[in-house]
Amino acid sequence: MVLEITSDSKNQELVRFGNYFLGILNDLKRRPEDAAKELNVSLEEIMDIINGRKEISSEIIIRAAKVWPVNLRDFYLMKDDCPDGIKIMRAEDSAKSSRIMERGGLPYYEYRDTAVSSISLFRPEWIEELCIVDDNDPNNPAVQWNNGHFMHQFTYFIGDVNYYYRGPDGQKKVAVMNTGDSVYGTPFRPHSFATRKNAKENGLILALTYGNQLAGDAQQELSVLGERLGMSYWLDFSSREKSFGSLLNFHRRCASLSFEEITKRTGIDKDRLIQFENGLEIPSFEIINSLAVSMNVNSRDLLPPDAIEDKVIVQYYKESPNWYYPESIKAYKIVELCHSKNLPFSKAFEFSILKNNDDELDLEVGLHQYAYNVGNENIQFNWRIENSVKHDDLKPGDSVYIKPNIPHSFRGGGKLMVLRIAGRIAGDAQRELSCLEQNDANRAISETSMWFDPQGKD
Amino acid sequence: MVLEITSDSKNQELVRFGNYFLGILNDLKRRPEDAAKELNVSLEEIMDIINGRKEISSEIIIRAAKVWPVNLRDFYLMKDDCPDGIKIMRAEDSAKSSRIMERGGLPYYEYRDTAVSSISLFRPEWIEELCIVDDNDPNNPAVQWNNGHFMHQFTYFIGDVNYYYRGPDGQKKVAVMNTGDSVYGTPFRPHSFATRKNAKENGLILALTYGNQLAGDAQQELSVLGERLGMSYWLDFSSREKSFGSLLNFHRRCASLSFEEITKRTGIDKDRLIQFENGLEIPSFEIINSLAVSMNVNSRDLLPPDAIEDKVIVQYYKESPNWYYPESIKAYKIVELCHSKNLPFSKAFEFSILKNNDDELDLEVGLHQYAYNVGNENIQFNWRIENSVKHDDLKPGDSVYIKPNIPHSFRGGGKLMVLRIAGRIAGDAQRELSCLEQNDANRAISETSMWFDPQGKD
Repeated sequence: MVLEITSDSKNQELVRFGNYFLGILNDLKRRPEDAAKELNVSLEEIMDIINGRKEISSEIIIRAAKVWPVNLRDFYLMKDDCPDGIKIMRAEDSAKSSRIMERGGLPYYEYRDTAVSSISLFRPEWIEELCIVDDNDPNNPAVQWNNGHFMHQFTYFIGDVNYYYRGPDGQKKVAVMNTGDSVYGTPFRPHSFATRKNAKENGLILALTYGNQLAGDAQQELSVLGERLGMSYWLDFSSREKSFGSLLNFHRRCASLSFEEITKRTGIDKDRLIQFENGLEIPSFEIINSLAVSMNVNSRDLLPPDAIEDKVIVQYYKESPNWYYPESIKAYKIVELCHSKNLPFSKAFEFSILKNNDDELDLEVGLHQYAYNVGNENIQFNWRIENSVKHDDLKPGDSVYIKPNIPHSFRGGGKLMVLRIAGRIAGDAQRELSCLEQNDANRAISETSMWFDPQGKD
Repeated sequence: MVLEITSDSKNQELVRFGNYFLGILNDLKRRPEDAAKELNVSLEEIMDIINGRKEISSEIIIRAAKVWPVNLRDFYLMKDDCPDGIKIMRAEDSAKSSRIMERGGLPYYEYRDTAVSSISLFRPEWIEELCIVDDNDPNNPAVQWNNGHFMHQFTYFIGDVNYYYRGPDGQKKVAVMNTGDSVYGTPFRPHSFATRKNAKENGLILALTYGNQLAGDAQQELSVLGERLGMSYWLDFSSREKSFGSLLNFHRRCASLSFEEITKRTGIDKDRLIQFENGLEIPSFEIINSLAVSMNVNSRDLLPPDAIEDKVIVQYYKESPNWYYPESIKAYKIVELCHSKNLPFSKAFEFSILKNNDDELDLEVGLHQYAYNVGNENIQFNWRIENSVKHDDLKPGDSVYIKPNIPHSFRGGGKLMVLRIAGRIAGDAQRELSCLEQNDANRAISETSMWFDPQGKD
C-alpha cells in the first residue's frame, strides 16, 4: 500500500514536471521534434517526458542548458513537502536538533530548529542565550557579536534577554528585553544576545530569519551581474526626497526620455525636474501622477517609501497595539508586534486564543505563515486543504508552517507567536497575476496545453 | 593556454559556488561541522566545497534536499553566458536556426532565433508570415490562431502584416500593420499573423516574448500551491475601484485587523471601509496614506494601477511619440513604441542612429536589453565592462543582448529596435536592496564571510 502511494506521488511529480517541461519548450518555440533534434534524443523520449511517463535524465538536462538559454536550475522543480497544506514540528523534534554554538571559546547559544518547509523562505530558530551578563553595558566584553547576515530577522523575546545592536550612527546599543518584546533587524546588521544575571532561567529568543524579494532568482541575478553592475541598482533611500529623486532618475533613464520631452508631456520645466532628481523636493501627488503618465509607469512606481525606517526597530510589548479578531466572535486577542514598512508583507503578532473549539475557519491570509506555541496550553489547530477539514494539536513548543491562502483557525486557549512573510507572489508578482483575466490567471498556474494546436483550428 | 583559461573559469565557478554554499549553511545556522554530520560527509569535503577546491557531488545535493528545507534547484547557480556584458547573434546564425512551423497542414511561419542569454527572460523570435490572406476579415478561415502563451509578447512589425487578436468582449479583430507599428499582448491572449496579398515580400515580425515577475521562482511557488490556493492570490483588477478594494481587503487580512481597530487608527468608519473594499469608491490620497499607516504598509502598496489597460494594445508608428536623445548631443532619434503600464519596466523603442563614432557612452539602463538591427546599415556598438571599453558592429539582422547597467552607445547610422525588460531586480527587489546601507547592499551581492567569527571578537 505504501509502495502504491509512493509511486502515485512519484507519478504526480513526473506529470507535473512533464507539464513544466512542455512550458519550457513552448517558451523557446520548440515543438517536441525540434527539442528531440537539439537534445540528441528520440521524439519518443521527449514525449515520454512531456507526458509524465519518464523522468528526464541529467544528460538531457546538461545538454539543454548547453544549447538553450536556460539554466540547470530551471529543470529542478520546487518540491512540495507539505501536501496537507501545513507542516508541524514537535517540541521533542526541535530538542533533538539541538546544537551548542561556541563564541570566544565558550558555549554561547543553544540552537534548535523549528517548523520549516522547502516552499517557504523561513529559517526560524529557537535560541537559548547561554552567556550571562552582569550589566546592561553595550560594550560588555563578554558579549560576542556576529557579522550580520543576508536574511531579515524578526526576533521574539522570552525572559530576561539583552539585545545588542548598533544605532544609526554605528554606536553600540543595548535593548533590555522581556517576554513579548520584539525586534526587526535589517540584513547585515551585526547583533548579539545574552541573558541578564539573576534571571530565573536562561533567556530565549525565537530568531525568525527569512528571505524576501532579494532571495532566490533575484540573488542569483545579482551574483551573476557582480558588484559593479549590481550596485548600479542600489538607489539612495537615505531620505524620502532622495528616494523620490533616485526613483525618478532611474525611471527617466529606463525610458531614455530627455528633459525636453518630459517638459513637453508634463509642462514641468527642466530646472524643476533636476530639483526633483537631486532629492531637493517631493512634488504633489498630482505632479507625481503627471510624471508617471509621461514615463508610462504608475504613480506607485515613482512613490518613495512613506517613511525612512530605522535599520533596527525595537518594540516593547507594553507599547504594542492590541485588538480582538474577528470583531464578531472575538476568537483571538491579537497583539501587533514589531513591523517595518520596508517589508509591507512581513507581519508579526502574538495571538491569545480565546474560543473553545468549533467549526469556524476564521483566518485566511495571502502570506506564508509560521507559528510557535509560546504558551502553556495545547492549541487546537483546524485547517482546510482541498475539500477536507483537518485537525491537529499544537502543544507548547510545537511550531507550524502554513501555506498561503489556507483557511484555518486556532481554538482552545494559550498563546501563539505568528510571523507572516511575502514569499514570491505578494507584491509585484501578485499585481502581474491580477492583470490577467481570471481564466488566464488559472492557466498561468496550471498550464498544460501546447501553445498551438498542430491540427489547426478556426 | 586554452586549458588554463577553461580551468580558470571553472575555478571561478567553483569559488562562486563555494561562497553561495556557505550562504546556504549560514541561513540554516549550520557550521561546516554540522553540515558534514547531516550530509554524511567529512568536514574536509565540506571545506573543499566552501573554498572552491572541489565540485559538490549530486549525492550531496540530493542528501541536502532531503534533510534541509532546500530544493535541488537551490544548488544550481544561474550561469553567466556573457561575461563580456553583452551577447551578439549574427544574422547568419539566426538563419541557421530556421524552422518552418505548419498550421492546419500548411507552412505558416518561419521561426529564427535571435540573441538570447541564460541571464535574461527574453525569448525573442524573428518570424516570417508564410500565410497570405486575401482580405482583412478577422474571421478569415485561412488564419490559424494559437492558444496564447505564458510569456508576455511585444511585437514589432516589418512589412504588410495583419495581426489577429480578440477584443475585450472576446470578438475577433484584425489590426492592419505596417513597418514600425507595434503591439503589446498580455499572456494567454490567442493571436495570429499573416501577410497581406500583393505585398512585395512576406511580412516579418520580431515576436519578442519574455517572462516577467511571474516567471522563475514565482511560477514554481504557484505551481506548488496549485490552482485553489494559487488563485486566491488573484485580485479583481477589472476597474480602478475594484483594484483598490481588492488590495485594501488583501492587506487588511494580511494584518488581521478588525474594522473597529482600523476605525480607531484612522477615524474612518466601518461603513466607509466596506464601501472601499467593495470597489465603490477610491478615497483621496490623504485617506489612502492614513489607511496605509494603519496597516503598516506604504501608500504605494495600496494604490491601484493608474489605468486599467487593454489586454492587447495596438500602436501605429505614425502616432508614436519621438524625440532626440541625449538632448545635448542628439545621438539618437527615439520613437516610443507600444507600452503597457501593467509592466512599468517594459520599454520598447526604435532608435535611429545619428552620430558618427566617438568615445561617448551615453546610455546606461537598469533593465535587461534586447536590440535588433532593423535597418540597412552597420551600427557601431560600444560598451564598457569592468574597466575595458569594447567595440563591435551590429550588421542588419544582427541582434544583441545587453546586461543591465552596462554603459554603452550606438554610432554610425541605421535603425535599431530596442526592448527593455525588468528581469528580477527592478521593482520590489530593487527597493528592498535600496533599504540596505550601501555597504550592506554590497555584501548582499558579494557575501563571503561566515555569519559569525568562531574566534570571537569584541
